[in-house]
Amino acid sequence: MDSQENNSDTPADAAVPLRQTQRAQPVTLRQVAEAAGVSTATVSLVVNKKKAARISDETRKRVRDAIRDLGYRPNAMAQTLVSGSSRFIGLVADAIATTPFAGQIIHGAQDEAWKHGYALLIANTEGNRELETDAIAMMLEYKVRGILYSTWFHRATEIPNSLRESDFVLVNCFSTEPGARAVVPDETQGGRSATEVLLKHGHRRIAFINATIPAPAKDGRLRGYREALEAEGIPFDESLVLEAYPDQEGGYGATEELLKRNVTAVYCYNDRMAMGLYDGLREHGLSIPDDMAVVGFDNQEVIAAHLRPPLSTVSLPHYELGAAGVRTLLGLEEPQASGPAKINCPTVERDSVRVLAPA
Amino acid sequence: MDSQENNSDTPADAAVPLRQTQRAQPVTLRQVAEAAGVSTATVSLVVNKKKAARISDETRKRVRDAIRDLGYRPNAMAQTLVSGSSRFIGLVADAIATTPFAGQIIHGAQDEAWKHGYALLIANTEGNRELETDAIAMMLEYKVRGILYSTWFHRATEIPNSLRESDFVLVNCFSTEPGARAVVPDETQGGRSATEVLLKHGHRRIAFINATIPAPAKDGRLRGYREALEAEGIPFDESLVLEAYPDQEGGYGATEELLKRNVTAVYCYNDRMAMGLYDGLREHGLSIPDDMAVVGFDNQEVIAAHLRPPLSTVSLPHYELGAAGVRTLLGLEEPQASGPAKINCPTVERDSVRVLAPA
Repeated sequence: MDSQENNSDTPADAAVPLRQTQRAQPVTLRQVAEAAGVSTATVSLVVNKKKAARISDETRKRVRDAIRDLGYRPNAMAQTLVSGSSRFIGLVADAIATTPFAGQIIHGAQDEAWKHGYALLIANTEGNRELETDAIAMMLEYKVRGILYSTWFHRATEIPNSLRESDFVLVNCFSTEPGARAVVPDETQGGRSATEVLLKHGHRRIAFINATIPAPAKDGRLRGYREALEAEGIPFDESLVLEAYPDQEGGYGATEELLKRNVTAVYCYNDRMAMGLYDGLREHGLSIPDDMAVVGFDNQEVIAAHLRPPLSTVSLPHYELGAAGVRTLLGLEEPQASGPAKINCPTVERDSVRVLAPA
Repeated sequence: MDSQENNSDTPADAAVPLRQTQRAQPVTLRQVAEAAGVSTATVSLVVNKKKAARISDETRKRVRDAIRDLGYRPNAMAQTLVSGSSRFIGLVADAIATTPFAGQIIHGAQDEAWKHGYALLIANTEGNRELETDAIAMMLEYKVRGILYSTWFHRATEIPNSLRESDFVLVNCFSTEPGARAVVPDETQGGRSATEVLLKHGHRRIAFINATIPAPAKDGRLRGYREALEAEGIPFDESLVLEAYPDQEGGYGATEELLKRNVTAVYCYNDRMAMGLYDGLREHGLSIPDDMAVVGFDNQEVIAAHLRPPLSTVSLPHYELGAAGVRTLLGLEEPQASGPAKINCPTVERDSVRVLAPA
């Protein structure tokens, strides 16, 4: 248990003389030419993939072998100047820092970009307009193939003017301007799926704790809840819809009101609310799922899978939003007839819902 | 409550004909030259800041005014070819996706990079070596000023060979190679600070639930716990150190063992364990902080501030790690005499610790 010997977080404390990091010397075009026994012009033609140039297959192969053996790196900047656009896709994000969600948009966008030979140039603006303008300007200077403009929560947005100088796709946001391409989560389908998890376990009196804050998610998730009930022939009862601030404290604070509604199940606007509601229900001596079935929304990392019991929920498809944004930018998705493309929110079933026992 | 009218997530559903996004035509060098009444060569000299060129101040001003008025964007790629290195700093990350932490490293690195006129080129490798090699190659081709090589948890790492072709700094990881610059969190100080929160509230019998997984954090946080106790003249008692898997289920599962130790306070290896322990203690009818004071580690987003009661903890300084990485790369930090630079983990006090009532 004593770790004093195993001093593993100060491994370089030994009395070794300090040297600056050594930088290997980059391999030059000339060295490749010498190794291949050709002129530098020939190497340049091979590197820039000038098919028309009269170079024999045998010579091409010799140059390519030398490039590989020496680890020569052609200058991407020079190639960009020749081709007119770079192998970059820009991604402007308004909040990488303040939410665990944005990371998945980046992840999906990057995986998809790499698949098509592009690298992602990311700028985190924290919603600062000046920084945003600078970031887009920088991307334009580097001749990006296009720009993904993303927001950390699903909302309407103004299109910044500088964005119009490039191809762009809105990700997790949308504009009312016709023709502005956008990908957003399908909130209505998500709300329907969340409610269906409860319905299929036999629940009929289902409350919905919605958010107080206006947002497409608030409207869409409520619409989905109504649609799912109506599909089962259950009339919509406005008194079963509560509202609370969409975090743990909001969910906890809604407990008393919820318990007055005489329901067997509740669908929460997000997982953070469900986490707070868990605490509130426990304080009333109620157990989940036996006394109350609970469904969340978001499938939020570090929360949903780790509550007691683990929470059934609906996933916000951030990874897929990033990937679909790149495909849309590159023209690999069928264009939508109208409005933003809507990405499916998949159901994730865990242990917070059980078949309703007969009363 | 009825949102059918307020159809805000399908704003473009109206019958507007679809057009492709319109792209504004970029302003050319020639247009700037015409507007300023000078040759394109003169514009080029002004853009590339050739001080020696014999151009009058008045002409320079006319060119700059035309650039501003027309919104001309000089080609950063061409400027890079002239200067030999770009205004990019590369950031290689092994897991943007699977942890909410990496986002803060990116945020800190980007803020600091922008401050010094650099943009961040980010690659997310998910620990895939091939992808990592490709990502570093891409950064080298774009002539980055240097590369930050970061890991999502603090650990020892091998330096990839391709990384040696550039200046680099290891962030949240380190190498035993002499001279390899690195910035890591000060785990020992963090462990000391966490324990001191409990000591200063009068606790003397303090348990530590450490992680089962070997890591610099495991060793350093234990060392800090010992140091804090010893500074108060409390002998180290090995039986008060438990081990569990570092997540909610691990913390929950440690409850029984903890309660056998007859302690008034516990410091958990991370906030996720503390979250699980909260559930375990509640099931035993115990209240926090009255029956048991609890301190965590990480100050993890969406958890620490939102437990009931909110959790006192120690912050992992991810933002500062990213920022310090950039400063180190640019030579703006005093070099360490030996070993990686250690970044302070600040204490965050909330409501899970109260002054110990006399027995």
